[in-house]
Amino acid sequence: MISPFLFDHDTLSILDQRRLPGKEVWIPCKNAGEVAEAIRTLAVRGAPAIGIAAAFGCALAARSGRGELEKASRLLVRARPTAVNLAWAVGRVVESVKDVPDSTLYSRALKEAHEIWEEEKRANESMSLLGASLFPEGRTYSLLTHCNAGSLATGGIGTALGIVRKLHEQGRLSKVYMDETRPLLQGARITAYEMCRAGIPAALITDNMAGWLMKLGRIDAVIVGADRIARNFDAANKIGTYSLAVLARSHGIPFYIAAPLSTFDPGSATGADIPIEERHAVEVLSFNGCRCAPEVEVFNPAFDVTGHELITAVITEKEVFYPCGNGSE
Amino acid sequence: MISPFLFDHDTLSILDQRRLPGKEVWIPCKNAGEVAEAIRTLAVRGAPAIGIAAAFGCALAARSGRGELEKASRLLVRARPTAVNLAWAVGRVVESVKDVPDSTLYSRALKEAHEIWEEEKRANESMSLLGASLFPEGRTYSLLTHCNAGSLATGGIGTALGIVRKLHEQGRLSKVYMDETRPLLQGARITAYEMCRAGIPAALITDNMAGWLMKLGRIDAVIVGADRIARNFDAANKIGTYSLAVLARSHGIPFYIAAPLSTFDPGSATGADIPIEERHAVEVLSFNGCRCAPEVEVFNPAFDVTGHELITAVITEKEVFYPCGNGSE
Repeated sequence: MISPFLFDHDTLSILDQRRLPGKEVWIPCKNAGEVAEAIRTLAVRGAPAIGIAAAFGCALAARSGRGELEKASRLLVRARPTAVNLAWAVGRVVESVKDVPDSTLYSRALKEAHEIWEEEKRANESMSLLGASLFPEGRTYSLLTHCNAGSLATGGIGTALGIVRKLHEQGRLSKVYMDETRPLLQGARITAYEMCRAGIPAALITDNMAGWLMKLGRIDAVIVGADRIARNFDAANKIGTYSLAVLARSHGIPFYIAAPLSTFDPGSATGADIPIEERHAVEVLSFNGCRCAPEVEVFNPAFDVTGHELITAVITEKEVFYPCGNGSE
Repeated sequence: MISPFLFDHDTLSILDQRRLPGKEVWIPCKNAGEVAEAIRTLAVRGAPAIGIAAAFGCALAARSGRGELEKASRLLVRARPTAVNLAWAVGRVVESVKDVPDSTLYSRALKEAHEIWEEEKRANESMSLLGASLFPEGRTYSLLTHCNAGSLATGGIGTALGIVRKLHEQGRLSKVYMDETRPLLQGARITAYEMCRAGIPAALITDNMAGWLMKLGRIDAVIVGADRIARNFDAANKIGTYSLAVLARSHGIPFYIAAPLSTFDPGSATGADIPIEERHAVEVLSFNGCRCAPEVEVFNPAFDVTGHELITAVITEKEVFYPCGNGSE
């Protein structure tokens, strides 16, 4: 299992996920600006992973004192708008050093960043066990996932893909179908790479094949991660997730979201409070540098919001929530 | 408006749609084998267009006598399995020369091929007018289309895109949103190219954004072509169409299919009788030669079938059919 980053010698090395699966290139970040740039440009992505990266970014800034830490925290929080883990992790590091002497500022901030990472790993483990337990024993399951909610998105075994891994370990996974997840192809490039490395039976489809697979009866459940969950359980996740939830509902297929409690945003009452990042047209007009369309207007929202009424269950590290109250499902 | 082919000097020149929009390359076909290869490899695609190409392929074979025509007709019909226009057009050319003297075999077959083309052009015109008339006057409309059902798919002004063109001419089109249509990107490459050339307001999205656009209230109707329509109005079309129909239904948005009567297959009672072409994994693993995924299993159906219960209306050159009987809608 590959990790999205390594911390060593006062440097956060970030695996450049834009280059996967073709190349494994590590970006050495020695200050918060370099970490923010890696987050902004999607060298590292996935709500829990960018939270952890930002925490280390804060720690690196803390080496230069409180003033730098304060500047870095503002910079890092602004790097991407939708995932709430970013602000949450930065807030934790800032809070952790509030009352410490300046001499231990860096070591304390670094300790907090490591703790956040360790907690995310443990959260992945427990939510994966909890998630797998939702699938009744005695048969195997064929799942559909979208984007990448695996180790590269979380620093641990993954959220949605953690559950896939557990079911595989328990001999209860027939296959995981992976949406390629345009425009940035996190499914084709990253989930397929992770599943191949782990020897998990997996098949790649384009995003527009998911409905037909459901119609053919090949999908037992949809399972995805999330970037921000509102108080009413409306959940923002990679663009395309909302369509999958509607399709799953139409086919009577359960739709699960797996995310750590750090992804819950007490500041968002409903999905309407979640900002949706719109990204540059070039992501839709091309990929991997291959241009595929003429110069034309583009709509490129990076996320969408799935209403809680479409979500069968939200699986966290502590508890399974049933937004529609159907806990017995 | 660009045509998918030209016939001149005993040669069917086919515009290589695999190279669009980057390059306009013409493939000169002097015999049926070359035409069949162009159809098989998707240099020419779109149900009406491959029917017309196959008719010219038959004519070219007829130059060498009835034996060659018979061989060619078998070869051409097998070139792709889902679109019914292929067998229909080949059958028309073969039938047209049944009772003619050998000396006029070629000229008669060629005349029939030209007639098929002219009829498709006229069919495009009348279905476009008929389709536009379904949209009540006095406001503008924002439509969503999938794949390419324009001039390059039909040889005329298009089926679904013909209706888009008419609404635009009538000043009643706000915008057409185009799904990029993975894996072969006919929307990004071909529809965007056609709409840009025609100066029609258009915006490109990835396939997985369609549901979110509907949720945002930006789509008034979905309008697509078809490759084969069964007697009960179940319709095969480019993969992803079925998902759009389910999403449209869930959002209370009308879902229209525009196709000439040549796309109706009296031999298919329901969609279950329509063969679905599965294509090579490399189409999903890459595009335009850019590899995007590791070596992994792939599911790559080229088409899906939308049940008639999800179709608001099927618009043909003669008549609008309401598969669910809701003609007053």
